[in-house]
Amino acid sequence: MRRAMARAVVGDDDYGEDPAVNELQRRAAGTLGTEAALFVPTATMANLIAVMCHCQQRGTQLFLGQNAHLHLYEHGGAAQVAGVHSQALPDLPDGTFDLDQLELTIREAHGSRYHPRPQLICLENTHSSAGGRVLPLTYLRQVRELADHYGLQVHMDGARLMNAAVAQGVEPAQIAQHCDSVSLCFSKGLGAPAGAVLAGRREFIAEAWRTRKLLGGGMRQAGVLAAAALLGLRHAEATLHRDHDNARRFAEAVETNIVMVNVRGAWPSPAELCDHLRATSEEEVAETGQAVSVLLLPWSAHTVRAVWHRDISARDTELARSKLEFVARKCQEKLALGLHPTPLGTGGA
Amino acid sequence: MRRAMARAVVGDDDYGEDPAVNELQRRAAGTLGTEAALFVPTATMANLIAVMCHCQQRGTQLFLGQNAHLHLYEHGGAAQVAGVHSQALPDLPDGTFDLDQLELTIREAHGSRYHPRPQLICLENTHSSAGGRVLPLTYLRQVRELADHYGLQVHMDGARLMNAAVAQGVEPAQIAQHCDSVSLCFSKGLGAPAGAVLAGRREFIAEAWRTRKLLGGGMRQAGVLAAAALLGLRHAEATLHRDHDNARRFAEAVETNIVMVNVRGAWPSPAELCDHLRATSEEEVAETGQAVSVLLLPWSAHTVRAVWHRDISARDTELARSKLEFVARKCQEKLALGLHPTPLGTGGA
Amino acid sequence: MRRAMARAVVGDDDYGEDPAVNELQRRAAGTLGTEAALFVPTATMANLIAVMCHCQQRGTQLFLGQNAHLHLYEHGGAAQVAGVHSQALPDLPDGTFDLDQLELTIREAHGSRYHPRPQLICLENTHSSAGGRVLPLTYLRQVRELADHYGLQVHMDGARLMNAAVAQGVEPAQIAQHCDSVSLCFSKGLGAPAGAVLAGRREFIAEAWRTRKLLGGGMRQAGVLAAAALLGLRHAEATLHRDHDNARRFAEAVETNIVMVNVRGAWPSPAELCDHLRATSEEEVAETGQAVSVLLLPWSAHTVRAVWHRDISARDTELARSKLEFVARKCQEKLALGLHPTPLGTGGA
Amino acid sequence: MRRAMARAVVGDDDYGEDPAVNELQRRAAGTLGTEAALFVPTATMANLIAVMCHCQQRGTQLFLGQNAHLHLYEHGGAAQVAGVHSQALPDLPDGTFDLDQLELTIREAHGSRYHPRPQLICLENTHSSAGGRVLPLTYLRQVRELADHYGLQVHMDGARLMNAAVAQGVEPAQIAQHCDSVSLCFSKGLGAPAGAVLAGRREFIAEAWRTRKLLGGGMRQAGVLAAAALLGLRHAEATLHRDHDNARRFAEAVETNIVMVNVRGAWPSPAELCDHLRATSEEEVAETGQAVSVLLLPWSAHTVRAVWHRDISARDTELARSKLEFVARKCQEKLALGLHPTPLGTGGA
Repeated sequence: MRRAMARAVVGDDDYGEDPAVNELQRRAAGTLGTEAALFVPTATMANLIAVMCHCQQRGTQLFLGQNAHLHLYEHGGAAQVAGVHSQALPDLPDGTFDLDQLELTIREAHGSRYHPRPQLICLENTHSSAGGRVLPLTYLRQVRELADHYGLQVHMDGARLMNAAVAQGVEPAQIAQHCDSVSLCFSKGLGAPAGAVLAGRREFIAEAWRTRKLLGGGMRQAGVLAAAALLGLRHAEATLHRDHDNARRFAEAVETNIVMVNVRGAWPSPAELCDHLRATSEEEVAETGQAVSVLLLPWSAHTVRAVWHRDISARDTELARSKLEFVARKCQEKLALGLHPTPLGTGGA
Repeated sequence: MRRAMARAVVGDDDYGEDPAVNELQRRAAGTLGTEAALFVPTATMANLIAVMCHCQQRGTQLFLGQNAHLHLYEHGGAAQVAGVHSQALPDLPDGTFDLDQLELTIREAHGSRYHPRPQLICLENTHSSAGGRVLPLTYLRQVRELADHYGLQVHMDGARLMNAAVAQGVEPAQIAQHCDSVSLCFSKGLGAPAGAVLAGRREFIAEAWRTRKLLGGGMRQAGVLAAAALLGLRHAEATLHRDHDNARRFAEAVETNIVMVNVRGAWPSPAELCDHLRATSEEEVAETGQAVSVLLLPWSAHTVRAVWHRDISARDTELARSKLEFVARKCQEKLALGLHPTPLGTGGA
Repeated sequence: MRRAMARAVVGDDDYGEDPAVNELQRRAAGTLGTEAALFVPTATMANLIAVMCHCQQRGTQLFLGQNAHLHLYEHGGAAQVAGVHSQALPDLPDGTFDLDQLELTIREAHGSRYHPRPQLICLENTHSSAGGRVLPLTYLRQVRELADHYGLQVHMDGARLMNAAVAQGVEPAQIAQHCDSVSLCFSKGLGAPAGAVLAGRREFIAEAWRTRKLLGGGMRQAGVLAAAALLGLRHAEATLHRDHDNARRFAEAVETNIVMVNVRGAWPSPAELCDHLRATSEEEVAETGQAVSVLLLPWSAHTVRAVWHRDISARDTELARSKLEFVARKCQEKLALGLHPTPLGTGGA
Repeated sequence: MRRAMARAVVGDDDYGEDPAVNELQRRAAGTLGTEAALFVPTATMANLIAVMCHCQQRGTQLFLGQNAHLHLYEHGGAAQVAGVHSQALPDLPDGTFDLDQLELTIREAHGSRYHPRPQLICLENTHSSAGGRVLPLTYLRQVRELADHYGLQVHMDGARLMNAAVAQGVEPAQIAQHCDSVSLCFSKGLGAPAGAVLAGRREFIAEAWRTRKLLGGGMRQAGVLAAAALLGLRHAEATLHRDHDNARRFAEAVETNIVMVNVRGAWPSPAELCDHLRATSEEEVAETGQAVSVLLLPWSAHTVRAVWHRDISARDTELARSKLEFVARKCQEKLALGLHPTPLGTGGA
């Protein structure tokens, strides 16, 4: 991937002249079945631009799940930068929200001069806070019908859309066809150092170009990043299949490439567990003959998140599993630990 | 009240020279036990200014109930004008929200550089969508403690705060003492044609003055409105006691001056019922010897809202009750109606 | 006027049911020759709503004079609330700006994806900072042609539009016809205690209604204010003629109802001069047989602003002139003062 | 540079773990003499973050030159995203603005509750629209004093700050010391494919980190870009000296690395001239023995902009000059052309 970056033929993307960026955008649009796509630094920016460009008109509102990444972890950009009112709906354990409730909420504001105009529904697929759950295709169809009935747009935060496609055994375009726009992240499962795309209709992407410029996301020779992203996209399918297998090796009952490790009991805390997994010690070398450092993320009061991406091999997965066993054993020697790896949503936190 | 307006001694409030406005602001601050108060055209502006002045710093978030007037019926001003992210919590039937859940939500963002800064908790008292429910004083104390623990402010949308005070038999200041700011509306229960105040600390109100100017709420000889508001405020307590009595005459189990009439069955719809109550007919005169027009508001798919204010006498209440009975009887003659006046939250919509 | 307010038949304007407001809006639209009009608390809100409703789309810019009231004295609402970029052009002494320069500025951004979209031209008539100068009708025609050529809207901050109409001897509609929207203030020359209208096309005013609600300008029984405004509007023409005559009595070479008094020399400062004019003293009574208090406004480092409105009679004007002479004489007795009343722009500050 | 990128040791910068980014930030802060620095995708984002972080409080205004890049070419982000009112001052030909006028403008709003709070002065150095002019150090000192007197911050759009330092023969920190923050672009004179830094006090940069996240500029393994930027920064001084020499070879009277080519007469237009310079032809090969493609930018109705950066050698400069002469000769053969390379501001457009 570094080699691809070093060899990338680039130009000034501010004038549309960077061949690597242009190729990536063409290919991403092709994969997602949209008219056009735009390369941006991060998936957060892709989502923010999507909100700004769908909600072009003053005084609109959007609907999304209350645990959506867009609602919780993107600094409230919809309100702070875009000035768009968010109506957050309760999430179901599978990453969806109740469509009857959504329709009631939309209907109250539809055509009313006492409410902001309903404009946009935001989905997240796979759904990160739900433990990487894949949204069912029938659900996507129903959301599309609802949106069409009320004249709304649908944006999918598809940071991990490729994982969903692999898990469902369908083309990414079969998922994206239900949406007006889709964001896709290259620095998560696809293994590129940085970058994302926002894909949609040609006119929408032209507007997105202006907004990217406004936000300061219009890099000059972005091709060096695009070249890596292109490689990630090309190898995505094969890579993601492998990630999913490895994640299953680590824990049962998981749909894609995220596993939530549920830490029961008072000790260690998620943060402490992550510290133990990361640190190596002479004791570890003595007992196991190896020094393994595993990077997991403390996620909530009782869970730790493990994510697979293209640079994590089956061998790495085995090493991680053995390190986890070592740490658990050490902890249990001192205290009853009670560590159970389970996916969030089917018994996790 | 019109006489008071006609006689009001006014000046240019833009230079702080309108005596009637100054007196109203002094008196409102006195009633609410705050250092200062500011006269504004509407309670919506009072709430918007409160959000803008508490969330003075970029990148903050506020917490409120998902059915709060501020969240549903004020055009998303927190996002659209103030750029503040709203975390809406599920409302309980009594107009409160769960404080453990609030604390969990605050704690996740507290001190984190991945979230907007927690800044403000918004309460509504009495709670309009909950059918005029009064927030318990112990609940207010708990919210205050939580806010202090995390360094947050508390704003109360007190459009109907006077009703709450009368219902609880306490001074308004005993309610307002738990908040950093309170809005109070003069054109609802207090019977003035227009206007509201925002009350709080002196420095906060100085900032609110600037924001009122920005939004275009700084009227010149506002004293003509202030004079009416002043009268409403003076007579508030006696007036409100009477409203509450009248509302009780109309329906059981209601705490303040709002009654939700629950319309069961398919016919008439809330809108049709309101039309019937408003219209007078020869049939009505023939049967009842009078022509009564009652103005209620279709509120949701199954409820109609009835509100008392200072110009509705006990006699008016009796007339309204008899008109309602007449309309119900007429409807039942044609169809089984199933009309049950109950307050929302204890069996209502 | 107070009597009209006391007798006003009102209703809930939030539901469009206030007869006095409706009549005022109809009459204002008639006077200005527009399809519709909306009553708002202040001219500042009228201007802010105009910017928000013309610049409905994200990413637009407006063009206005650098000394426009909208740019300098309305708290930057175009940026702060509306998020609209302002391109301010140098003002000429007569309150206009150079149209060739305007066209160059528009042309640079027109159709460019590197600039915010040109959307709105804002004029001010009469122009307050230019000393109440009236914009020539030929100039308005040229602005209209330019706007049409580039697909832009024109808003006129017509807080003092009635003064302009009287000065030019034309119907207000002959001025307003060149604009897509016009604001008109009732609490300046028209003598009402508060209120303004925003006038324009029906669809634009429907959008303005939503925005007024958002900003908190949608008062309930606004009719008590509308009744006074209506009276002011009806008597406007006669009244304004008289104001202009009186202003001319006070100073030569002034077009409308504003006179800028130029204070040369080091003493007294504009603020001190205003203090002297306002205060009364035994010395004054002794020398002139009367005690007159005149309220003028310190305007800049070297000017004091005098404004006429409907409650200032010819007799009041004489009294003000004699008080000014008394103060000037007293000052000159101590120091060479050098006081010259001249309109700003023709030799003023 | 590509090799450096391919070899960069990276990590997840979202957790502050990317060594290449950390080193770049340390080194940039060292070069600029600030406590800290933050890597961002573009100089536009650096400027937008600076505005947002200096103007943290609601209701502020900033002062800048009317031709500043920040005002004209960054999509009005100060208004559109940051909600900050901009007071634009007339630019002088040397890229400065008149400090007496600045002070008058600040003083009018200072401490006034009728104006947005004065908060920030933005400078641009070298000044792009003025033809790459360098701001004098004495001017920077005066701006600093003025800012301190009124409690304002100073931000320098230093996209080309390194060019200014080389031209003045001083350390970059001697320029930056007069400012509270400085942006520096790596993809202009420093030759990296993308990226910029924002430098300032530690607390300011912590706030900038949050804002970068909000805008979607927080890339994961940003080290691949940072490695290239680091190289550019290291070689900056030597490189820039050479650029300046080359630019001088191309035109007299130019201070840094930008030359404005003034195209007089009706033909060719700036766009046509650029097309001719870019295209190669058999005629060119026949006449000159070589095919040279020169990329210049049509800048205004009468100017073309030529910019030097680290990959343009003295030999390249000679080739560009000969291509320009060839094109000019061809044009003159058909028509009197009148082509005069001069720097903007000393006789240019």
